[in-house]
Amino acid sequence: MSLYTQLFYSAEVNALFSDLETITQMLRVEVALAEAQSNKGLFPKAIAETIKVSGITSEIDIEKLKIDIALGGNAAIPLVKQLTQIVKNKDSEAAKFIHLGATSQDIVDTVMVLQIQEFIDWTDKKINLLETLLIALTQKHCQTIMIGRTLLQQAKPTTFGFKTAGWLTAVTRSKQRLQEIKKRVLVVQLGGAVGNGNPNIAFEIQEEFARILDLAPSFTWHSHRDNLAEMAGLLGILSGTLGKIAKDISLLMQTEVGEVFEGAAAGKGGSSTMPHKRNPVTCAAILANTNRVPHLVATILSAMPQEHERSAGLWHSEWEVLTEIMQLTGGSIEKSIGLIEGLEVDENRMLTNLELTKGLIYAENLALALAQKIGKSTAHEYVENACKKAIQEKKHLKEVLLEMNIEVTDLDSLFDPKNAIGLSLELIDQVIKKY
Amino acid sequence: MSLYTQLFYSAEVNALFSDLETITQMLRVEVALAEAQSNKGLFPKAIAETIKVSGITSEIDIEKLKIDIALGGNAAIPLVKQLTQIVKNKDSEAAKFIHLGATSQDIVDTVMVLQIQEFIDWTDKKINLLETLLIALTQKHCQTIMIGRTLLQQAKPTTFGFKTAGWLTAVTRSKQRLQEIKKRVLVVQLGGAVGNGNPNIAFEIQEEFARILDLAPSFTWHSHRDNLAEMAGLLGILSGTLGKIAKDISLLMQTEVGEVFEGAAAGKGGSSTMPHKRNPVTCAAILANTNRVPHLVATILSAMPQEHERSAGLWHSEWEVLTEIMQLTGGSIEKSIGLIEGLEVDENRMLTNLELTKGLIYAENLALALAQKIGKSTAHEYVENACKKAIQEKKHLKEVLLEMNIEVTDLDSLFDPKNAIGLSLELIDQVIKKY
Amino acid sequence: MSLYTQLFYSAEVNALFSDLETITQMLRVEVALAEAQSNKGLFPKAIAETIKVSGITSEIDIEKLKIDIALGGNAAIPLVKQLTQIVKNKDSEAAKFIHLGATSQDIVDTVMVLQIQEFIDWTDKKINLLETLLIALTQKHCQTIMIGRTLLQQAKPTTFGFKTAGWLTAVTRSKQRLQEIKKRVLVVQLGGAVGNGNPNIAFEIQEEFARILDLAPSFTWHSHRDNLAEMAGLLGILSGTLGKIAKDISLLMQTEVGEVFEGAAAGKGGSSTMPHKRNPVTCAAILANTNRVPHLVATILSAMPQEHERSAGLWHSEWEVLTEIMQLTGGSIEKSIGLIEGLEVDENRMLTNLELTKGLIYAENLALALAQKIGKSTAHEYVENACKKAIQEKKHLKEVLLEMNIEVTDLDSLFDPKNAIGLSLELIDQVIKKY
Amino acid sequence: MSLYTQLFYSAEVNALFSDLETITQMLRVEVALAEAQSNKGLFPKAIAETIKVSGITSEIDIEKLKIDIALGGNAAIPLVKQLTQIVKNKDSEAAKFIHLGATSQDIVDTVMVLQIQEFIDWTDKKINLLETLLIALTQKHCQTIMIGRTLLQQAKPTTFGFKTAGWLTAVTRSKQRLQEIKKRVLVVQLGGAVGNGNPNIAFEIQEEFARILDLAPSFTWHSHRDNLAEMAGLLGILSGTLGKIAKDISLLMQTEVGEVFEGAAAGKGGSSTMPHKRNPVTCAAILANTNRVPHLVATILSAMPQEHERSAGLWHSEWEVLTEIMQLTGGSIEKSIGLIEGLEVDENRMLTNLELTKGLIYAENLALALAQKIGKSTAHEYVENACKKAIQEKKHLKEVLLEMNIEVTDLDSLFDPKNAIGLSLELIDQVIKKY
Repeated sequence: MSLYTQLFYSAEVNALFSDLETITQMLRVEVALAEAQSNKGLFPKAIAETIKVSGITSEIDIEKLKIDIALGGNAAIPLVKQLTQIVKNKDSEAAKFIHLGATSQDIVDTVMVLQIQEFIDWTDKKINLLETLLIALTQKHCQTIMIGRTLLQQAKPTTFGFKTAGWLTAVTRSKQRLQEIKKRVLVVQLGGAVGNGNPNIAFEIQEEFARILDLAPSFTWHSHRDNLAEMAGLLGILSGTLGKIAKDISLLMQTEVGEVFEGAAAGKGGSSTMPHKRNPVTCAAILANTNRVPHLVATILSAMPQEHERSAGLWHSEWEVLTEIMQLTGGSIEKSIGLIEGLEVDENRMLTNLELTKGLIYAENLALALAQKIGKSTAHEYVENACKKAIQEKKHLKEVLLEMNIEVTDLDSLFDPKNAIGLSLELIDQVIKKY
Repeated sequence: MSLYTQLFYSAEVNALFSDLETITQMLRVEVALAEAQSNKGLFPKAIAETIKVSGITSEIDIEKLKIDIALGGNAAIPLVKQLTQIVKNKDSEAAKFIHLGATSQDIVDTVMVLQIQEFIDWTDKKINLLETLLIALTQKHCQTIMIGRTLLQQAKPTTFGFKTAGWLTAVTRSKQRLQEIKKRVLVVQLGGAVGNGNPNIAFEIQEEFARILDLAPSFTWHSHRDNLAEMAGLLGILSGTLGKIAKDISLLMQTEVGEVFEGAAAGKGGSSTMPHKRNPVTCAAILANTNRVPHLVATILSAMPQEHERSAGLWHSEWEVLTEIMQLTGGSIEKSIGLIEGLEVDENRMLTNLELTKGLIYAENLALALAQKIGKSTAHEYVENACKKAIQEKKHLKEVLLEMNIEVTDLDSLFDPKNAIGLSLELIDQVIKKY
Repeated sequence: MSLYTQLFYSAEVNALFSDLETITQMLRVEVALAEAQSNKGLFPKAIAETIKVSGITSEIDIEKLKIDIALGGNAAIPLVKQLTQIVKNKDSEAAKFIHLGATSQDIVDTVMVLQIQEFIDWTDKKINLLETLLIALTQKHCQTIMIGRTLLQQAKPTTFGFKTAGWLTAVTRSKQRLQEIKKRVLVVQLGGAVGNGNPNIAFEIQEEFARILDLAPSFTWHSHRDNLAEMAGLLGILSGTLGKIAKDISLLMQTEVGEVFEGAAAGKGGSSTMPHKRNPVTCAAILANTNRVPHLVATILSAMPQEHERSAGLWHSEWEVLTEIMQLTGGSIEKSIGLIEGLEVDENRMLTNLELTKGLIYAENLALALAQKIGKSTAHEYVENACKKAIQEKKHLKEVLLEMNIEVTDLDSLFDPKNAIGLSLELIDQVIKKY
Repeated sequence: MSLYTQLFYSAEVNALFSDLETITQMLRVEVALAEAQSNKGLFPKAIAETIKVSGITSEIDIEKLKIDIALGGNAAIPLVKQLTQIVKNKDSEAAKFIHLGATSQDIVDTVMVLQIQEFIDWTDKKINLLETLLIALTQKHCQTIMIGRTLLQQAKPTTFGFKTAGWLTAVTRSKQRLQEIKKRVLVVQLGGAVGNGNPNIAFEIQEEFARILDLAPSFTWHSHRDNLAEMAGLLGILSGTLGKIAKDISLLMQTEVGEVFEGAAAGKGGSSTMPHKRNPVTCAAILANTNRVPHLVATILSAMPQEHERSAGLWHSEWEVLTEIMQLTGGSIEKSIGLIEGLEVDENRMLTNLELTKGLIYAENLALALAQKIGKSTAHEYVENACKKAIQEKKHLKEVLLEMNIEVTDLDSLFDPKNAIGLSLELIDQVIKKY
């Protein structure tokens, strides 16, 4: 755990990408390869068994591994060397069959996919939870009237449930995308030296290898990184959606707005110098991640034009960055769940804020009502004048209209927020019934 | 056409995004809205008809429009004003029904989607063509032996067809992605002022509006931009794949490699000072686009945390950038087609280059053959020594091995490139039979 | 002028980068080269004179030029061809001396530098104006008390002049950076085919060439783009600073805050559906640019590892992007000037907003006063309790303190905003006296 | 040390940013603040002394700190709490004077500056070393003739020393930039809660505080991040320059080029399946870093429009990213030194490669020689034809010219590479004499 792990990240996600876990996955892949090859008759199953019992993370000299990575240029080369020595100590014959026909990138890439697989599984669960929370929030507040704001200005009323329904639909689309990408990204890499295979990794072995790892086989993608880029991109999108939610909440938490709050925890969000403050600490953490992820996604896209059969540098630039994208997005997911779970809504403040413009937010309602009589642009102009008057004279718009003797039947109802929320309830219903 | 239009872009794609075309699409959307509303009985069809015959691009004062955009902050506001005036001149009653219940962003966003729709259609066709060309190239060169290169070093033999099969599979995956995104991105925007609708844009009207425009209805996405970001991301991926192809070709065109060439055209690729040069001009143009697109995708992702019901700035930052992404990717697609179409392959040079290492590229073959006898790591070491000797004494590896009296049956066949291309042919077959 | 030119850009800056202007600059460079060479005796001055009178933009067939750019791969090749033909028509002898010893990139790069030079000159003037406006604003409002906000929460009082002094210092640092970069970026490119020169562009000719263009000579930088990247970076920084100002203003313009406003212009910032709104249109435009520029700067940085003596693609990717960076930043500068010039400040609202927390913003003041007596952390805790009580009981903090019988001398003065603005006035003074 | 630390990073640089080191620096800043305040008479020196002896990293409960960071939102809040407790245990009076008048961001930002200061010092030394190596390399190879390449095509001869002189000039400009930025970036942050100071951090205390830390005082820059962005940008530029060098070397190491090699180390650059390969592992590591840094720089630029007096998220997004930029660039610097130090140059291969085009690379020389007689464009055309003939008939250009009976005096000398290196030697001399 580094200094900022608790603030920005999810401990569960970070654990998927620890050095130990990565080494464990590399060993898992080497073992799966031997198993597949022995299952398909390349060598006796006993040999695969020996390799399997040798491929134990605790046997690896990790500090030596880290040093040797700088010589070999990737993690698979020194690991295979250590694994071979461990097996040799048990059975020198078996040692000949480790990593047979494979190339380092086969291992490194397949490990990345396995980690993506675990991350997708984790994310699926968490997004389901987030959806459940957002559905409940939407249902609870479907009629909680608040002002809608465009360009940071009060515009006209909506409901808080309508706002959260929008959050929900965006989250759900990201869930769909993650489902769709599985068929492309959850594939093994097993191409050998320059990707065109060899008898030791023949297609039936690749299929068996994939089956063991619960992945699909694939044409070599050593220097075709579109699936990884797609994964990065989808997380960039999910991260953006979570950032949008955090942005909204942080704005609603402003002292001058005060409609919604992060849940309080003992000691949370306190300021060292201003004891009364309740800072949007969780929103800030999510927004920090949100600012970083797009650029990391672009890094993966920039890494795509990889030279020939294996790139000198662009491939290497993916490793830490893909991990970072998953870690940051994972952090944002976990923190968003806490954020929605603990969210406090001040319905009274929402109502109070609706009156801040002294009726001006009902101007469109009024204009629409008038438009039926005197045409849209005339009505627009008319209401604009009334608004100007209201502003100049610091009066309520209703008062001005009464003074101007405008013939509007049922003026009060036009200034009733309940009548100004458009189709919020119907549209929310349509969303909710899909779940 | 600007100075670099011909170099980087596709004239056809650029035409989809011209100012005139954008205005035409805005008018199309306003007309469709009126048509939908009258179809659903909001007002007489004659009114919609009047609006339709008025919504003509040539009637718009474009210079005035451009100036007014800076006042209103988007293109819809002044266009609606002009359109209203045009209709008013014909029928002051009809003028009341323009843009009814809609907000500017409804129009601007729906226009963006319509342009995306046209771009996807164009891209579909072009990718089909590119696929066809790559299939033919792959079939033609499935047995054309060349060296595979990893980390820019000669590694071991492959075939040119295997290389192009890799290009093909990546292009096809981008085609799939574009199919999958249609259901999400090809949707109308019709939410009204703060997105929660009103009777003038009730759900049945939204459905009709969508039907007329050949799009789908959708929950308001004024400040949820994930679908646009997904579109941007997919083009970033496609752009990266095309960049990878151009990178490979530009490297293969190097004077010292000389295996593959851009097709020559009169005057193309000439240097002002070196009359003998044949520059990879098309590759350079594609690679230039490839360097730009990832950053533009990130711009769209960075624009995602849009405030409340409509953003002050982030929304605005999408307009030109989404267009640029489509224009640059469109340019790369068109240029890639030309590139593959005209590609010249020097099969002899490929064979000659295979001999540059004096047999060292067959070292793995040899090591694998030996591994069966003496174990993988011993064989590896053994061959390593032979290679060192060959390098030091500047001899062919085969010669060294003969001197070292290594018992390898059928040494010649181990140095025959035909026997060193792994499973290239089978793997290519598997790819091709999917089309 | 394109659809969004008025909204995001400066017409003056865009004019510096028009196609016509670029062609004019290319001709200027070719003419300067001939002039330098004849001045240094390479050929008679009459020849340079003939080239000069021929290098007229109106003589160039621009449409043909645009088409030929796609063949040659850059703008200099076809331009030199056309210029040569124009000169030949006058004096076939003179035509031999055009572009002598130079390479296309010499011309294209030097033109880019000349455009940067003009842009810096323009920016210098505009930043001076912006500084002047900010100094006046700071002086006018040095004592205008408002709340300072951290993490979007009211924190403690400051003055509006202190806020604008911060804007001012950041703008001034960008001005300094632009001064410092001149010595590096305002240099000619004149290296010939592979950059290592030739007798036709010997060092003394390079010096003369530079002198004529009011630039400095330089070691060849065909594939060393650090100076251009530095220029891009500095504009990214300036753009960020202007974005920070626009961000602040757009937040202060929120309906619920209402402390500061963009100047109103007829028709500006109106909404098509909400007649009462006054949108931060100018802020939105600046913030849109601000979201785009960082990614364009990264594009230029990504383009830096250019291969060998001239890159195949990375160089080409700079052209439009450097221009875009200058255009977007230019737009933001011009719009920021308008923004500051027209800024409306509502001092009363600022005072009203100070009371929103019912005294809580003075908690630190209080804690500091108490800290002297009972220690910092105890005081902090004490005040925290008082604040909680005030919040729970919806009372003013002062009232709660009176109830709690806390011994603070001169309680009123601790709740007087004038006594809570720290060293605002002194610190502003220190800033202002530097100008 | 993580899995890839040895591959991409510098252990020395990473050490500057370890959690322990960061905590140590935070304590150093708190101690310096107390020292400055007591020096200026705010409280007895004994108190500052007590704080000093308490501010010991080993006293801090780091795991608790990490957990509390997630509550407070930054590292300073919980650290101050722990420090206060430690001091209290010694002297409850002294505990009242910790962090007096400061805000968390004052500490966090000043620590970042101190780490930047140490990084700049480290970088200064390393760049000096890199310069020294490049000067030696340039002098050694000033006359080592090789081909210059543009757009990845052989163009015309240059010398290897000329190429390395270009590397050198770019590295030196980055050194200059780092010198120039010191006056802006090496400043303390000490503004208090909302930046406008208070008597406890009056200007004379800020000056003393800065003096103790060997930094300069500054107007508050809590939400003005231009100096940090400038630092990020300069490292982006340096990173790009180092990437350009690595790109050149990796291309020159290609099997088909073979002119320059990374120094060999036991086990370095070996491939797990191709025993003969000597991979550009160091170049790959540098190029990986080079692909990442531009996007991280853009992250910092995107973080600039920070809200009001302290941002909710953008500030937080800087912490890890600024560190990463320094770590990646530090890694690239260290690796570049090793790369240049160990560089092996194959002068014979360079000469051999010059003959690959059978004289075509001398075409410009020839064209220039002919231009004097028959005009530039005619000469160009003439030589173009000769080149075509040479290519078609696979003859040496010299042979073709002899057949074509072209009157060129001293044809041999035109094909002598020594006569084709332009002004390489003079231009190198001009560069070298500046050091």
